Amino acid sequence: MSEERPRVDARKLTDFSAKALEKVGVPKDDAMITAKMLVACDLRGVESHGVVHLNSFYARRIKRGLIKLTPKPKIVNQGISVATMDGDNGLGFIVGYYAMNEAIKRAENTGAGFVAVRNSTHFGAAAYYAMMALGHDMIGFSMTNNVPSVVAPGSSRPALSTNPLAVAVPAGKKSPFVLDMATSVVAGGKLEIVRRTGEPIPEGWLIDGEGKPVTDVTKRVRGDGGLLPLGGTPSHGAYKGFGLGLVVDILSGILSGSTISTLAQTSPEVRGNYSDHFFGALNIASFLSVDKFKKSMDDAMDVLEALPTLPGVNKVTIPGGYEDGIAKDCQANGIPLDPKVVEDLKALAEESGIEYDL
Amino acid sequence: MSEERPRVDARKLTDFSAKALEKVGVPKDDAMITAKMLVACDLRGVESHGVVHLNSFYARRIKRGLIKLTPKPKIVNQGISVATMDGDNGLGFIVGYYAMNEAIKRAENTGAGFVAVRNSTHFGAAAYYAMMALGHDMIGFSMTNNVPSVVAPGSSRPALSTNPLAVAVPAGKKSPFVLDMATSVVAGGKLEIVRRTGEPIPEGWLIDGEGKPVTDVTKRVRGDGGLLPLGGTPSHGAYKGFGLGLVVDILSGILSGSTISTLAQTSPEVRGNYSDHFFGALNIASFLSVDKFKKSMDDAMDVLEALPTLPGVNKVTIPGGYEDGIAKDCQANGIPLDPKVVEDLKALAEESGIEYDL
Repeated sequence: MSEERPRVDARKLTDFSAKALEKVGVPKDDAMITAKMLVACDLRGVESHGVVHLNSFYARRIKRGLIKLTPKPKIVNQGISVATMDGDNGLGFIVGYYAMNEAIKRAENTGAGFVAVRNSTHFGAAAYYAMMALGHDMIGFSMTNNVPSVVAPGSSRPALSTNPLAVAVPAGKKSPFVLDMATSVVAGGKLEIVRRTGEPIPEGWLIDGEGKPVTDVTKRVRGDGGLLPLGGTPSHGAYKGFGLGLVVDILSGILSGSTISTLAQTSPEVRGNYSDHFFGALNIASFLSVDKFKKSMDDAMDVLEALPTLPGVNKVTIPGGYEDGIAKDCQANGIPLDPKVVEDLKALAEESGIEYDL
Repeated sequence: MSEERPRVDARKLTDFSAKALEKVGVPKDDAMITAKMLVACDLRGVESHGVVHLNSFYARRIKRGLIKLTPKPKIVNQGISVATMDGDNGLGFIVGYYAMNEAIKRAENTGAGFVAVRNSTHFGAAAYYAMMALGHDMIGFSMTNNVPSVVAPGSSRPALSTNPLAVAVPAGKKSPFVLDMATSVVAGGKLEIVRRTGEPIPEGWLIDGEGKPVTDVTKRVRGDGGLLPLGGTPSHGAYKGFGLGLVVDILSGILSGSTISTLAQTSPEVRGNYSDHFFGALNIASFLSVDKFKKSMDDAMDVLEALPTLPGVNKVTIPGGYEDGIAKDCQANGIPLDPKVVEDLKALAEESGIEYDL
């Protein structure tokens, strides 16, 4: 992050984002929940899923009428520990927030809670929902489907979305373990970033319609070829990434009563908007003492972080630890916003008639 | 599979394996359960986890007194939907069988069942336990830790075991979806096979102590370097494979009251024997109609299998479909055993004083 980035206060950015969402018609409480989720990404350095999308993505889709502003998400089927929810085409953040809380509530009573959600929209970063479990001393799970962009091994036609999955696990003194990963080699957000900068990408991320590696994203014809599943090639485990992606689509899409991303994204208006999710929580106290669990997590991370490293590597990084460090810095010193995002937020302020006070 | 492989009848091979296990002291019923699990791997073409290990691995460990023959696995903590089990150092197959059935029973009542198991031993292939859910119209999950052999990104010291995870999902007319994957680029079994044949391996599977790629496994110094996590390099998602491996170790090791594989495998006798597991089941009927779910699975697989393919690729393969095809052939025509395995089984028959009647 270069020096020319202005640091903005996280709370002010949250209030601003909430106001902007209210201006396009999102109810006050929902606007605040959504704003907190977006800013939580920026706090953790996950810029691709933060306020960068506030205007270009969410506000515009709401204005185009693609998202129902006062949805009635409802449980359509359930067991004591599980539920299926219809999101009523509401804002994915709100539907997801409601569904993850349902999973947590069930896990409090029975040790496990799982909720499959259909008929929702883009819910931002998967990590947020999984992390909602942390404060309850639970392990959280979250995943979602979206627009197909990842090819199956042996094909060059997008078959699945990047189908991210997140797992969050509390620790004691150490940062929580938080894994948030696309099941493709790289997330779609990485391509967005290089599309702006024009930098070449490594072979093994993306192929064209003939299966050849694409290294210049700017020359890519949209819809031709796609991202490779995690593993990359069949000899290096591509069927594993593809299989994991399909697990995400089965749990989010099929188990919720929708279908896999390829089949769900049928009409052009729907593309990139429609989304199914799957959330889960395991209550640690139902398995063992929470103190013992957290101590054991701390010990494990200490051992892994103390592993000898190869030249040029400072220390082994545990997923979540790096982002947690950024969050502490940004909470104290402000979030360093990309100047392009600042411009975008100023434009949004002017359009919406709200003050840009960051 | 070359022509010189004799085809042996699956039922006879099961009976033979059960008898051999009984001879080393495994109780009759447990011997049959274990034999069925081993032969189920050979039936599905997963030779690395089948009867190839009957003698060299399981029988010898039992003779060395490393595995308790009449263990009392017991539930040490529980919620309505979850449980923690102590495997009492029993045969992993039996402990796993018992624990997965506990998960299924809980899912029948509440929609979800999850069981973490500590103090167990090598349980064979993860897929078997996940597939136990299929007949109950449930989605099954299974995972395990074992001997550390996989490095963390940026290190060359084995940090985690290959920590496999399996997910099994029933379909209607199509084969069930069955993903069984190591969270490393390749499973340990693949290295075993090339160690025998002496064939070179591709770069990106294994590194030496200096982080350099190893392509000749026969020259490898044991304990120096290790397998790469799925993704391979940091730029191609190695932190994802490492993160998934850690999730397996957290759910199997830490949540069960044991610890991660690096810390659990402390003494040389224990190495390769000690194992923790995690099992789960989701009851489809608690989410939606089982018929609708299965129809939706069939439709999804039809669409994926009909994807256009690159030159030289016949059709897109769904995890589980290929193995299911082999199983049907082997069930009807016998299992084509590697001549070396036949020799090994004959030696076992002689040692144990049982007839080799395959």
